[in-house]
Amino acid sequence: MKVYGKNAVVELINAGKIKVNKVYLQSEFLKSKNDFLDLLKSNGIPMEYMPKMQLDKKANGARHQGVIAETGEFEYAELGDVIERNKKSKKPLFFVILDGLEDPQNLGTILRVCECAGVSGVILPKNRSVLVNETVAKVSAGALFHIDVIKVGNIHQTIKDLKEQNVFVYACDMDGDTMYDVSLTGDIALVIGGEGNGVSELSRKLCDGIIKIPMFGKINSLNASVSCGICVFEAVRQRVINGK
Amino acid sequence: MKVYGKNAVVELINAGKIKVNKVYLQSEFLKSKNDFLDLLKSNGIPMEYMPKMQLDKKANGARHQGVIAETGEFEYAELGDVIERNKKSKKPLFFVILDGLEDPQNLGTILRVCECAGVSGVILPKNRSVLVNETVAKVSAGALFHIDVIKVGNIHQTIKDLKEQNVFVYACDMDGDTMYDVSLTGDIALVIGGEGNGVSELSRKLCDGIIKIPMFGKINSLNASVSCGICVFEAVRQRVINGK
Repeated sequence: MKVYGKNAVVELINAGKIKVNKVYLQSEFLKSKNDFLDLLKSNGIPMEYMPKMQLDKKANGARHQGVIAETGEFEYAELGDVIERNKKSKKPLFFVILDGLEDPQNLGTILRVCECAGVSGVILPKNRSVLVNETVAKVSAGALFHIDVIKVGNIHQTIKDLKEQNVFVYACDMDGDTMYDVSLTGDIALVIGGEGNGVSELSRKLCDGIIKIPMFGKINSLNASVSCGICVFEAVRQRVINGK
Repeated sequence: MKVYGKNAVVELINAGKIKVNKVYLQSEFLKSKNDFLDLLKSNGIPMEYMPKMQLDKKANGARHQGVIAETGEFEYAELGDVIERNKKSKKPLFFVILDGLEDPQNLGTILRVCECAGVSGVILPKNRSVLVNETVAKVSAGALFHIDVIKVGNIHQTIKDLKEQNVFVYACDMDGDTMYDVSLTGDIALVIGGEGNGVSELSRKLCDGIIKIPMFGKINSLNASVSCGICVFEAVRQRVINGK
């Protein structure tokens, strides 16, 4: 994978989850940015300076702002490991399940929201879903390197598995109970639908409940990443207020 | 202005705020979509069929999905008119002020959020700010045609004017009081900062208070449109719970 831009590369290195093979730097302006060079050196990361034109070619159209890191492959987390780690630290579980998301911009934005909200992990199916790629890394503003992303074979099975572990699973959709009236504390998972069709019928049926954002306009449809942000932070509010 | 895509054009016509001069349709597939054609006919809107290639050229790279409307100019609303209309209908005022937003994608998404939330109007400065354009219209998914957008000469003066009318103005920023602890009912305005620098120092000083979204991660920075969505819907929650 390639990671573009100084800030994203700083997050990549600080998170320490993905091996950084080499960092390519634009010849002119980076020699003065000592903190960044110090970070690369102290982590023993090989560097190579090159002119902007060569860097542009390597970036293949992506905005690199003078820095490109070449990394090892992104590693998805295992659901069981994430649950175990959270239980050890006595944190209530808080998963977000993406049911058919297609747009890498939305996935990047959702990872950013979930990292800020302290979500335990983001779960997505290996088929019929956007997966982690360079665009996702870029849009996530480095959040990708700090949050556990879990790729599963079948999210319906995952919903069943989570329910067996006493995790309450809620679909976020247009109908359902207003989210302020539903307790989102304790061990929970929120299912967010894709851009086109929302949460799938089977997922809805498997969930413990359906929650909705109240709407007061004429359009009454939100972008998937924004509605994810609103639902996730309603859960955050309840957890802050209730201290759990 | 050009408006692209069937759904956006439906909203454009239903809202009735902008004159639709003509609608261009792709020859092949639209003859069967009778509801849409009926809408055009019943509103007396001139239509013209053309092959995809010609429509592509007209769209100049935008995704048109077979439909392009050519409209009159977008008309911004006047702050005084919006306040008067809201007061007549006894609705508490709820403004969103955009302080230096630059990205049309973010403006489109924010208009969509604000329309869904029943916000009274979105205020932006005429300088150093993204203004309404075709991208904004497209990203807003038609919300642009249903919400009042107010362009002002100077948002600092507007903040002062609103305060004089007993509107409580809050900046949304990284520091400040956790938003759950601040009353966001009654007549309010939320100031949302731009992508780069957040809310400007002068705006912060003029505001009645600063509210923050609590953060629990390592990145702890949200996209402008997502943080706008989260703050706006926290105000919605308080207004729903309090019945005002």
